[in-house]
Order: sequence, then structure tokens, then C-alpha cells
Amino acid sequence: MHLLKERILLEGQNLGNGILKIDSLLNHQLDPLLMLAMGKEFAARFADVPADRILTAEISGIAPALMTAIELNVPVVYARKKQPVTMRGKIFVESAPSHTKGGMVDLMVSGEFLHAGERVLIIDDFLASGQTLMALSRLAMAAGAEVVGVGVVVEKIFEGGRDAMHQAGFTMPIHALATILNMDHGKIVLA
Amino acid sequence: MHLLKERILLEGQNLGNGILKIDSLLNHQLDPLLMLAMGKEFAARFADVPADRILTAEISGIAPALMTAIELNVPVVYARKKQPVTMRGKIFVESAPSHTKGGMVDLMVSGEFLHAGERVLIIDDFLASGQTLMALSRLAMAAGAEVVGVGVVVEKIFEGGRDAMHQAGFTMPIHALATILNMDHGKIVLA
Repeated sequence: MHLLKERILLEGQNLGNGILKIDSLLNHQLDPLLMLAMGKEFAARFADVPADRILTAEISGIAPALMTAIELNVPVVYARKKQPVTMRGKIFVESAPSHTKGGMVDLMVSGEFLHAGERVLIIDDFLASGQTLMALSRLAMAAGAEVVGVGVVVEKIFEGGRDAMHQAGFTMPIHALATILNMDHGKIVLA
Repeated sequence: MHLLKERILLEGQNLGNGILKIDSLLNHQLDPLLMLAMGKEFAARFADVPADRILTAEISGIAPALMTAIELNVPVVYARKKQPVTMRGKIFVESAPSHTKGGMVDLMVSGEFLHAGERVLIIDDFLASGQTLMALSRLAMAAGAEVVGVGVVVEKIFEGGRDAMHQAGFTMPIHALATILNMDHGKIVLA
């Protein structure tokens, strides 16, 4: 996605250790026109899937997931990392290592909002190690739903997440709107 | 906003202690058509403000803030509750009591995304005690920005937040898309 790649090259910062700062357009500030364009692009790439529901993880997955949901007219559910007081009854829980905060984080979805037989499209901000996406996928499978596609705004291909997902048996389409080939020596090299 | 009120009456649950569960439409699952309608409604109510930027708080403020931003074509910044590794340099920090989690939560915005002289519209999910909205407002003022309006999806008027904000000197328009008069005896009474 050309517009996104331009913005990453213009505004992205390589903070070392594989950390890409794109707070100006995804992780702190949101640009509505860029977000709309991302939603349209995801919808186009997954047009032939089709999905009944979008699953993402709080916090930074919410905006791209919602924009895609608007294009596809399906509900979004965002996995919570802390159990809110309103989350009761049957809960699906998986955990994944946090890329930016260290330690493990739980991902929780209420049984109210993931159902057996649903076709689920997973949308998130980054594909790095793939662990968060695989945890989201396990949530969907635990509910008896089928994951029909995975879309991410940015893939850091050098972290091996796509390979790890293939090795774990993921055969559904995985699309990234921008792919970073390497971040060596302070650079940001896009595909 | 009629559509929202209908959905609250249909799907909302009074969990006691003033806790309104509307996870099916705002705090866990998002309905894209309802979200679009909320964005249009906020944009209409604040059409004469006008704002340069929308400020909200993660997590549940992000969706309504983004939908409003799309209508108004202005950037959103969402205050973070934990400092991400990408947040460096000048940071504005305020704290507010958490309504649903207990204790105090920090709200942090990078100095990169709030600027002196900007006209800021605050959008959030709930107006209860008003403490989070006042903390967001202090963030904007600390940056030298002006808060020109406050919009919330749901106001629980019996918690006194609007009065507290007036007493604290808030004179800008405060709009709620749905107002709950009381939640006594397990009921949800809308204005």
C-alpha cells in the first residue's frame, strides 16, 4: 500500500532492537484518511474470503480492525488484556509474549462475541514473531470458529512470524499492507 | 441519538453499583454501522466548534473518537495508560481514578501530538464522575491547547460528572449521545 509505505519512510523511526516507532499514524495518533484507506485495502484483499466477524487485540489493532469492519459491514470484537468488571460468564483466554512491554499478556474474549461456525478475519497492527496473531487464532478456534484470513498493517518479515505461522499450520491468506525487510544499522528497508 | 438509546435498552445490562454493560456495542464488540452513526452525530453536534484535533483515552474511547475524526477530517490522539517503549521525549501525564478497575490510572500523551494553540475536542465512551474527562482536559491545557468541546457516548447523569465539570469551570459544550437518568433497582432509565 503505497500511501502507507510513504508515511512509514517519512515518519517512522527505527529505535533499535527491531522497534519501529510509527506513533504518528498508528500507535498513538491516528490519521483518519490513512485509516480509511487501510480499511478499504484490507477489505479489497479479503473480498473473496468472506468473513462474518473481525477479531483484533486492544489497543492498536482497534482502529484498523474497525475501518475494515466498516468496509465489510461485519462486527469487530477486540480481545481485552485485563478482564473488565463487565466480562462475566464464559471467557476464552490465551496468552502471548508482549513485544514492546516484556512478559506475557493475556488475551480474553467473552463467549458472547465469538461463536462456533463463524468465519473470522484477524486484523492487527504488527506481524513480528506472530505470537499475538497465533494467540488470537487460538481464541477463535477455541470458540469453534474458523480463521479465514490474517491482515496486519506492518509486517517485520525479519522477525520470522510468517514462517512460524506457516510451520504452525496456518494456511489461510496472510496480508500485510507494508512489509519491512530489515531494520539493520538504523535503516527501515521496505519491500 | 435514537438508534443508540434503542440499542442500550435492548442490549445494556445494569450490573449494579452504576456499572452499565454495553460490551455488545462499545466496550468489547463494535458495530460498524452504529459507530459510523455515532461519528456523524458527534460531528454534527460539534460542527460549529470547530476543532483541530480529537483527544481520547485508550481503550474504549478510540472507536468513537476515530469515527468522529473521519467526519471532521482531523487527527486523533489517544492517551496511553502505560508508557510504551516508543514514547520518549516530552510527555504530558495526568491521572484519574479508574471507574471500573479501581485505583488511579495515568493518562499520557506525547508532546509530539498535542500542541500549543490547537483547538481540541475530547471524545470518550462514558461521562460518569467526569474525572477522566477532566484529566484529558488538563493534558490539553498543559500543552497550551484549548478544549473546545467534550463529547461522550453515554452520560450517567446521576454520578454528577457534568456538575463537577461545571464547578471546575468547564464552560465548553458537553454533549452525550445517550443520557442515563438512573440505574436504581436494576433498571436503566434513559432521558
